[in-house]
Amino acid sequence: MLIYGDLMFFGGDYNPEQWPEQSWPDDVARMREAGVNLVTVGVFSWALLEPAEGRYEFGWLDRILDLLADGGIGVDLATATASPPPWLSVAYPDSLPVDADGHRLWPGSRQAYCPSSPRYRTASVRLARTLAERYGGHRALRMWHVGNEYGCHVPRCYCDVSAEAFRTWLRERYDLAALNETWGTRFWSQEYTSFDQVLPPRRTPAFSNPTQVLDFARFSSAELLDCYRGERDVLRELTPDVPVTTNFMAGMHWEMDYWAWAAEVDLVSNDHYIRVHDPHGHVNLAFSADVTRGLAGGEPWLLMEHSTSAVNWQPRNVPKTPGQMRRNSLTHVARGSEGALFFQWRASKAGAEKYHSALLPHAGTDSRIWREVVELGSDLGKLAEVTGSVVSSTVAIVLSWESVWAQERPSQPSADMTATDELAAWHAALWRLGITVDFVAPGADISGYRVVMLPSLYLLSGVDRDVLARYVESGGTLVVGAYSGVVDERDHIVLDGYPGALREVLGVRMEEFVPLLDGQTITLSDGSAGRVWREFGRVTTAEVIAAYADGEDAWSRWLAGHPAITRNTRGDGTAWYVSTRLDPPSLERLLGRITGEAGVAGSGVPLELVRRSHADGRTYLFAINHDEEGAVPLDVAGVDLLTGADFPGEVPPGGVVVIKVVTP
Amino acid sequence: MLIYGDLMFFGGDYNPEQWPEQSWPDDVARMREAGVNLVTVGVFSWALLEPAEGRYEFGWLDRILDLLADGGIGVDLATATASPPPWLSVAYPDSLPVDADGHRLWPGSRQAYCPSSPRYRTASVRLARTLAERYGGHRALRMWHVGNEYGCHVPRCYCDVSAEAFRTWLRERYDLAALNETWGTRFWSQEYTSFDQVLPPRRTPAFSNPTQVLDFARFSSAELLDCYRGERDVLRELTPDVPVTTNFMAGMHWEMDYWAWAAEVDLVSNDHYIRVHDPHGHVNLAFSADVTRGLAGGEPWLLMEHSTSAVNWQPRNVPKTPGQMRRNSLTHVARGSEGALFFQWRASKAGAEKYHSALLPHAGTDSRIWREVVELGSDLGKLAEVTGSVVSSTVAIVLSWESVWAQERPSQPSADMTATDELAAWHAALWRLGITVDFVAPGADISGYRVVMLPSLYLLSGVDRDVLARYVESGGTLVVGAYSGVVDERDHIVLDGYPGALREVLGVRMEEFVPLLDGQTITLSDGSAGRVWREFGRVTTAEVIAAYADGEDAWSRWLAGHPAITRNTRGDGTAWYVSTRLDPPSLERLLGRITGEAGVAGSGVPLELVRRSHADGRTYLFAINHDEEGAVPLDVAGVDLLTGADFPGEVPPGGVVVIKVVTP
Amino acid sequence: MLIYGDLMFFGGDYNPEQWPEQSWPDDVARMREAGVNLVTVGVFSWALLEPAEGRYEFGWLDRILDLLADGGIGVDLATATASPPPWLSVAYPDSLPVDADGHRLWPGSRQAYCPSSPRYRTASVRLARTLAERYGGHRALRMWHVGNEYGCHVPRCYCDVSAEAFRTWLRERYDLAALNETWGTRFWSQEYTSFDQVLPPRRTPAFSNPTQVLDFARFSSAELLDCYRGERDVLRELTPDVPVTTNFMAGMHWEMDYWAWAAEVDLVSNDHYIRVHDPHGHVNLAFSADVTRGLAGGEPWLLMEHSTSAVNWQPRNVPKTPGQMRRNSLTHVARGSEGALFFQWRASKAGAEKYHSALLPHAGTDSRIWREVVELGSDLGKLAEVTGSVVSSTVAIVLSWESVWAQERPSQPSADMTATDELAAWHAALWRLGITVDFVAPGADISGYRVVMLPSLYLLSGVDRDVLARYVESGGTLVVGAYSGVVDERDHIVLDGYPGALREVLGVRMEEFVPLLDGQTITLSDGSAGRVWREFGRVTTAEVIAAYADGEDAWSRWLAGHPAITRNTRGDGTAWYVSTRLDPPSLERLLGRITGEAGVAGSGVPLELVRRSHADGRTYLFAINHDEEGAVPLDVAGVDLLTGADFPGEVPPGGVVVIKVVTP
Repeated sequence: MLIYGDLMFFGGDYNPEQWPEQSWPDDVARMREAGVNLVTVGVFSWALLEPAEGRYEFGWLDRILDLLADGGIGVDLATATASPPPWLSVAYPDSLPVDADGHRLWPGSRQAYCPSSPRYRTASVRLARTLAERYGGHRALRMWHVGNEYGCHVPRCYCDVSAEAFRTWLRERYDLAALNETWGTRFWSQEYTSFDQVLPPRRTPAFSNPTQVLDFARFSSAELLDCYRGERDVLRELTPDVPVTTNFMAGMHWEMDYWAWAAEVDLVSNDHYIRVHDPHGHVNLAFSADVTRGLAGGEPWLLMEHSTSAVNWQPRNVPKTPGQMRRNSLTHVARGSEGALFFQWRASKAGAEKYHSALLPHAGTDSRIWREVVELGSDLGKLAEVTGSVVSSTVAIVLSWESVWAQERPSQPSADMTATDELAAWHAALWRLGITVDFVAPGADISGYRVVMLPSLYLLSGVDRDVLARYVESGGTLVVGAYSGVVDERDHIVLDGYPGALREVLGVRMEEFVPLLDGQTITLSDGSAGRVWREFGRVTTAEVIAAYADGEDAWSRWLAGHPAITRNTRGDGTAWYVSTRLDPPSLERLLGRITGEAGVAGSGVPLELVRRSHADGRTYLFAINHDEEGAVPLDVAGVDLLTGADFPGEVPPGGVVVIKVVTP
Repeated sequence: MLIYGDLMFFGGDYNPEQWPEQSWPDDVARMREAGVNLVTVGVFSWALLEPAEGRYEFGWLDRILDLLADGGIGVDLATATASPPPWLSVAYPDSLPVDADGHRLWPGSRQAYCPSSPRYRTASVRLARTLAERYGGHRALRMWHVGNEYGCHVPRCYCDVSAEAFRTWLRERYDLAALNETWGTRFWSQEYTSFDQVLPPRRTPAFSNPTQVLDFARFSSAELLDCYRGERDVLRELTPDVPVTTNFMAGMHWEMDYWAWAAEVDLVSNDHYIRVHDPHGHVNLAFSADVTRGLAGGEPWLLMEHSTSAVNWQPRNVPKTPGQMRRNSLTHVARGSEGALFFQWRASKAGAEKYHSALLPHAGTDSRIWREVVELGSDLGKLAEVTGSVVSSTVAIVLSWESVWAQERPSQPSADMTATDELAAWHAALWRLGITVDFVAPGADISGYRVVMLPSLYLLSGVDRDVLARYVESGGTLVVGAYSGVVDERDHIVLDGYPGALREVLGVRMEEFVPLLDGQTITLSDGSAGRVWREFGRVTTAEVIAAYADGEDAWSRWLAGHPAITRNTRGDGTAWYVSTRLDPPSLERLLGRITGEAGVAGSGVPLELVRRSHADGRTYLFAINHDEEGAVPLDVAGVDLLTGADFPGEVPPGGVVVIKVVTP
Repeated sequence: MLIYGDLMFFGGDYNPEQWPEQSWPDDVARMREAGVNLVTVGVFSWALLEPAEGRYEFGWLDRILDLLADGGIGVDLATATASPPPWLSVAYPDSLPVDADGHRLWPGSRQAYCPSSPRYRTASVRLARTLAERYGGHRALRMWHVGNEYGCHVPRCYCDVSAEAFRTWLRERYDLAALNETWGTRFWSQEYTSFDQVLPPRRTPAFSNPTQVLDFARFSSAELLDCYRGERDVLRELTPDVPVTTNFMAGMHWEMDYWAWAAEVDLVSNDHYIRVHDPHGHVNLAFSADVTRGLAGGEPWLLMEHSTSAVNWQPRNVPKTPGQMRRNSLTHVARGSEGALFFQWRASKAGAEKYHSALLPHAGTDSRIWREVVELGSDLGKLAEVTGSVVSSTVAIVLSWESVWAQERPSQPSADMTATDELAAWHAALWRLGITVDFVAPGADISGYRVVMLPSLYLLSGVDRDVLARYVESGGTLVVGAYSGVVDERDHIVLDGYPGALREVLGVRMEEFVPLLDGQTITLSDGSAGRVWREFGRVTTAEVIAAYADGEDAWSRWLAGHPAITRNTRGDGTAWYVSTRLDPPSLERLLGRITGEAGVAGSGVPLELVRRSHADGRTYLFAINHDEEGAVPLDVAGVDLLTGADFPGEVPPGGVVVIKVVTP
């Protein structure tokens, strides 16, 4: 199966049905002008393709696919199942989703379906089959695009159909005794005597059972994955040589267990949008891209959607500044994407996303956006030889969606002790140090990494814990953030001192979690500042690198002198524990020290630097200058693929160079 | 039909059923003492008047109307349909409204009915007919008061009955193809193949279809207007000489399209309440009054409700200070009201509004409120000759409820870019300049105005756009605020550069909207400060009056030197564009310059000044001094109708004078 | 009936079913090591005890009760009805509660039952009977524990079953005419013509009828009390010599009328948890304890639950500092508790409360918590002679749950004018003065108190008003806070000047309430500072102690010189009125002056001091030092029961002494 080709993909979602057919040839001509080579067609076309159950209207799709093929533009053809047409829920009212409070979600926007609905599943697989039968051999077809952003709007449904599916899912995993034991139902009189009594975690008088909530999150991710798989199987059956993908939202939405999803796609693709309130939006972009590369197992992947400029769904939608779209796109490519696609080709004139920017804006081709689009197409055209190369790293962060779900729910020691922001914080500290990092799953083979980090891994199974212990004993450097390894895969506390699963490898034994109130900080003996969290306990075999020193509340007195940051030598390796949440400068300093001691060097320049290399040694250094006002010298020998300029040289303000490195 | 009389109305809602009948004669005596000449009776009396379906009890109403008539007090008789009695929803459960989330709204407060309910409509029209038959000839009857504050609590209902009515409303306007085209349903797979599939914009997984939301807002205003019309038609049939009104809430609630409503009443009446958290509550009062005068087509109107002192529904209900009720009342009169009515005559001792002030407070007649009430009655009595006179202005603001609805919904470029506050901000700037302004509908005849302003008119039809273009070409001065003319009446973008509908008349072409984040500002080259919004583009035929200069974010660099405020000469007129939201001093300075250039002079004194004039030239200058501590000299020749004092003279601190102007 | 014994109770909730049976003997051994003598068993065991309707499994409970009895540990045996098992709501879906918006609350946490459900009531009483029959004679049984924290999660249910029960409750109190009169239904067209029309105050378009809301609050408290009484009656019938209790949450939750509840228990018990965001959490603890003592009529009571360290349900759950648990426990004992019990014995490893601290923490016995637990057990063992002694006071605060309900609802003059915080504020001022205060019900015999205070008693019946008047006339000192006595028991205004019911005794007549906006203050002539509230009026017979002087808003000018704090002499007594909400220092100064003038002395030392005395004169002075850093000298002669140290002496930092006072 040909997954990637010999050029960088460039293009985006193309929704020709929104425009009069006479304008289509002009669309294709403009695409060619811009260098577009791949468009996603049909994502929201179900209502048009199947206007009544089992009745299809394919003429318009035939015509546009032919036009695109004639123009040499490949098509990522959607199965069109992301959003069912209005007739479906009229015919099958129980296909509509229901939230935890019992509110039904109605048609009129998008994705109004219950993931467990047999009605939805039957209809969507039938449509996928019909499309594959008709277009499986079309010369424009480049890949299949199943659904869209699964889990973005309705990741979890609490209706009666979902309840029955949840019970089925549970029955496959537990007998009744095991369910009761795993969920700890002897607390609060929740013991089930029949599976028929089990429900989704709907609105309850007090806190819901945590393991019920966790299992429901697992179930919900699995249900949508089943929706995907149903269509994927049909596509594989009919078109075994056409790669199948669905676009993830890694780093933006956290309800899908993408480790499980990644195993089911031929090609990992991802959508990413910058939040304008985040002054470090470009670091979040790198985070999303690095997570996606992890999902692809380090292999290339594809940026399926981002934006040329503003989006429409934030409170205030600031456009991208001139040059920003180019930096964003090439950063994704630097971190493994085989191109840059956008939502969408042409800005809508009506509907809920009409203020979402596009390659062709409302203002038309006489616009700075269009000019930048054309320039980006040209740039990507020059990077053909980069395709197929990969990013490598010696540092890994362990990421687990299951752990995020278990951690980010009520009745925890502190509502501020969230996982997702700490994962981003550690990644950002490494970004500032100029260290490229991989993301790996718990239990993955980490033996090749010099340093492995667990910024916040609350839930850890015994099996996965053993992998970490062996890693350290074999000489690895492990860095563990606070509140990791506290519970097992059932969300049961590992008893006799925290962090239960990691107590031995870390050489510490903590007795109590001591959250800080909002805005409070604690100073450590090395001058670091902690927030949100502290722990009260002692070292067993570890040495104290920094102790709690001074703070604002009564606990500060009692904690003074107790261990805050520790280092344990075990076997041939080292295991660090950070029992508070360090502020960004302190975290950067600590991680800089640890990686330095492990022989991992940072970049040392105020540029975002990432390398992609081919197996034959050809290496490309992407250098992104986020400073819009000053050029930055870069002392690397080679040639910029984009301009032909020789290096060493300067990266211009706000600019990007892709240096084909001369190996000395 | 006699709509207004030869005296200023004074009085308010009178709910005698809340009090023992033996106290009624005392009520009437007190009314006479205070000079009350009009009371609204029966607004919430349905349950008492019709205790069971079709069974009526009119005795008490007979008696109080006779008492009032004997006391010489006119009655604004309510049709009593504002709040159905409990028996109605027990008999007809589907007459209860349902919100967008599916929550039913129950009896136990007021106005618990679905506007589309045939049950409610039948019952309310029947009650109106029965009342008109019985009291149509009563000597106390002065006018009819249909319903009450339509749309205040349940402007929009999402139940199945409403859904069916919405479909009927749509069918009258569109065939299915037109509906799909207008709503842009080809986006997000929303294409309808039958009207049966169409729903109100209930809770959806993502953003609802914007045009569906807009049409539902239109429908909802029209449905309540139909409720009103049903009763009005019966009243007109039975009592063709008695004027019919219903009290609006112009400037407070925005869900009813009052342009449509105003066309259906014999007498425009309005309720206004000051929000105590607003330090400029008196300016908001003027705004409300001016909008109401616009609804009355410049003719007199009637202040149906305001308060003598505190209300009960705000978080903190601060009473009016001594003198404030008088200033408020006379400001309404200055701006066109033929008197001042209040909610309510006597403060309730029980129920949800017992802490709402009244003419007769809990403390009784030995109270400062009662003394001020008596004084106000006396003042109004001296203004008899003012009745029938009108306010005129040379400046108009274009106001559109439809545009407000289209603009103030999610998935816009900025959630801060609301219309209602900008309308108020421009009105307030003119208020500070001492310029009285009219409000007009889009498409109205504006040829008589020297300056016409569109502070925020997002939605503009082609027909209405042409009126503006002709106005400028004929020598008018048009001032357009940012984000006006962006979409047509379908909420479709006018393409090829913003603001599409006004690009030519303004001589600008904008490419992108560039919102500011919360709290950010931008400085213009003339020293003005902008907030919330900026636009990126260029002038075509206009000249740049002020360019973007300096700001806090990255975009400021890219915008520097680009047009912010422009002026275009076109035909004999001038069209200004303000592409940001100016802060109050900057806006006041700009509008002062523009009106000055157009020959419109401000008052030049720190008083609120408004003129009412008769056709025969008799003119009354209302001067309100909002400074409670200092008198203000006023250089106008005439006599104060309230005190007989000669002018030129001084307006006392916190005082009001009504000068019958001596024409030189 | 033996209610209390000859020793202080020590222990807590013990949920053995959460742990393997082989660990139970170790639990009992540890309890003995810590001095535990009472454990509450079975609170959440319904699902285990009755796994199917009418089928019981008592083996495990037999065995643990025997083990406990063998270990000499008494049992507070729960009727296990706090949380129905899943099978109950599957069999009887209408036993689930529904909130005011119509959302059903589902099983999966705890207490998911409708208080009016006949299904729940029948099943719970049957279980209580079965348990009483089986264990009524068990040698471990010390007392019965009915339900748990009634009203904590679902104090009010709005379902159809509840609606019918509400109508029944109303029918017992009113005929239809009286209902309409009491609820003031002539306002807003709410007149009922049949009880079938009456509903709970479900979601309405505007403010619900206030008296309907008040009666529904009364009904809801009564319904849960009926649930309790149903079980209590069975227990009394079968085991007349075993005391029955249920644990209140006085001072934490306000939905139950504990005056009514207290009359129905043999032994008043209470749960209290400190909120970590409150820097005065220990004062709130004293407030809760003092209210509980009031509920017990001044007699001893029992602290049924508090925590050894952190809880799990606050946003940030900070553990108690070393020593804090001891101070908290002994403060409860000082204020009348016959011991200190905790939730729970052993920290759960699973479920929603696994992060709630316990006597035996996750870390096990090698922990500072366990060491402090053992120390506390030892301390309590030394206080055996204190049992049965009582606290006495010469100052009382009048507290009414009904009044709180009437006051704390929407459409009041100010949403900030809440009752519960003002009750706490006055109590805290007296706490700082070192004055122990009793809480009494309206209408209680207050003749023995030197000073009686009404910090915020909005609703006052005529009968209760007369008690206050007689108290003053007989020489008492009454201190009334603002917004007291405004309405009668129907929530009807007492007309002709505020505060209607207290106008005469206070010698003032107020005309208007003048709330302050958020953050505003007003200065009084004596330098005091007021917040939230002011009143405009005059004195009739009272003298002005402090007048309004100066503030930030326009009203300040008009209020200047008007009475703020007044004192009225009436008969032999004195009645003070405070018409604003004083800030803490001003309030402390005023209450210090008034109590001083009434001959009530404060403690004069920076220690929390409380005395318990036996009828024979033996007196114990509890002195708690909340300063963790400095010792405080205490000039009292006696011996510390805990250490044997002689006094006068010092109370160590963060320490507690219990001095058996030597009477000179």
